[in-house]
Formats: sequence, structure tokens, C-alpha cells
Amino acid sequence: MDTVSAPSASASPDGRFDVMAPACPTRQVVSTLGDKWSLLVLYALENGGTLRFSQLQRTVVGITQKMLTQTLRQLERDGIVSRTVFPTIPPRVDYELTDLGRSLSGVIAELRSWAYAHMDDIETAREEYAASSGG
Amino acid sequence: MDTVSAPSASASPDGRFDVMAPACPTRQVVSTLGDKWSLLVLYALENGGTLRFSQLQRTVVGITQKMLTQTLRQLERDGIVSRTVFPTIPPRVDYELTDLGRSLSGVIAELRSWAYAHMDDIETAREEYAASSGG
Repeated sequence: MDTVSAPSASASPDGRFDVMAPACPTRQVVSTLGDKWSLLVLYALENGGTLRFSQLQRTVVGITQKMLTQTLRQLERDGIVSRTVFPTIPPRVDYELTDLGRSLSGVIAELRSWAYAHMDDIETAREEYAASSGG
Repeated sequence: MDTVSAPSASASPDGRFDVMAPACPTRQVVSTLGDKWSLLVLYALENGGTLRFSQLQRTVVGITQKMLTQTLRQLERDGIVSRTVFPTIPPRVDYELTDLGRSLSGVIAELRSWAYAHMDDIETAREEYAASSGG
């Protein structure tokens, strides 16, 4: 009686969603947010406010044009990032977080703080893992 | 003077780390955590406590054996998940969160709550995006 089955424990309090169920829309949200490039683009927009494509590409060092396009499209589709096109020549395209995107800042800040605070532990773990794999 | 450059704004308070710098180890941590399967495996272990490989595979519906192996190896390498082998026949292998992994629970809970709370907004955004892409 004291066992909890993992699938139901992962359901939302009202039982409408379950992140472990492949068909549940929340799982798609985890797919969007659980993506290295999405997280880095969100960090960049959170720090930089409104940014153009080229500014984003410079900030998220190492992202390819294709990956940045794809990442922005997915974030736009989910209503997290807005895209504004100005009819100049050449056209200017601005990206910024929507209100929904800004509501993510607590999550993002917590993830980043965690990484900064625990980096030494992780590096120690990696060294030990490498040593034990080699031995 | 009121502009903030995005790269330095992404550095840690003590200036040791910068998640936007490809060579920075924190970026690798974001790669691990910023991964759909890692997040789902972490959810599963947080809810389920100690789990065997087959239990994890049943809980994280849709993950392949190969992806689960790969995800667990990366989490083990980073010191987030521990792996204990019992010399039974057949060998039993248990996975559970380490103290470091458990320290992630705040981040994970916040991400999941955000997804559950904002799912309706995201679905509305997706419908609008689909309608505007089609028109």
C-alpha cells in the first residue's frame, strides 16, 4: 500500500496531463524545453531583450543557421518567442520573449544557478567516472 | 551605457563560468539536462526511487533500450545517477538519484509545474500558429 506507481505519480495534480505519456501535450513541451539549443536561445533572449537573428547567432556561440532557424520556429509555434518582421530593405526580423516566454525565467534561472553551483561536483564525478572506466 | 552585452550577462556571478561559451563545462551540463530523455529519466527516478533498467523503460514510455542506456550513462558520468550492480544470476542493476541528482528536484519540479500550468496557452499558440501558417 505504500508503493506509488511511477506513471500516475507523474500526472498533473488535476489528472489532465502526464508527462510520461507519449501522447500528452506536456511531453511535447518537455521536448521543446528539453533541448540544449532552446535553452541557450531562451537564455540569450532573457538577457538581451529584443534581438535580431544575427545577434542571436553571435550570442549562442556555435549554433548553426539551420539549428537557430529551427529552434526559433519551434519556440514561436509554442508561443514562447515572438517574431516581428519590419518591411525594410533588407527586411529586419526581431525576436523577443512573449509574456509566456518570460514566465519561464524562474525555471531558466533555477537551472542555470544549479549548473553554476554544482559544476565542481560534476567535474569531480566526471574525473572519477573516467578513472573507473579506464581501470 | 544602459546596454548589457548578452555574453557577459550569461556569466556566473563569480565570472568563472559562461553558459554561452562552447568550451565552458556548464554548457555541457546544459546539454545533459537540456535533453528530453534525460529530463524524463530524472522525473522517473524522482518519483520511483530506486528502479531497474526494465522499470525505467516501462515508465519512460517510448524510450528505446539504446537511448535509455546512453542517457543513463551520461547521467552516471555527471554524478547525477548512481548504478549499482548486484552479482545475482541474471545480474540485477539498480539506478537511483545521487545526492547531486536529488538537488535537481527543485529545478525539475519547477519545469514540470510550468508545463502543466501553461499547457493551455501553448496549445492556443500552436492552433494560432497553424492557422496563420496555413493562411
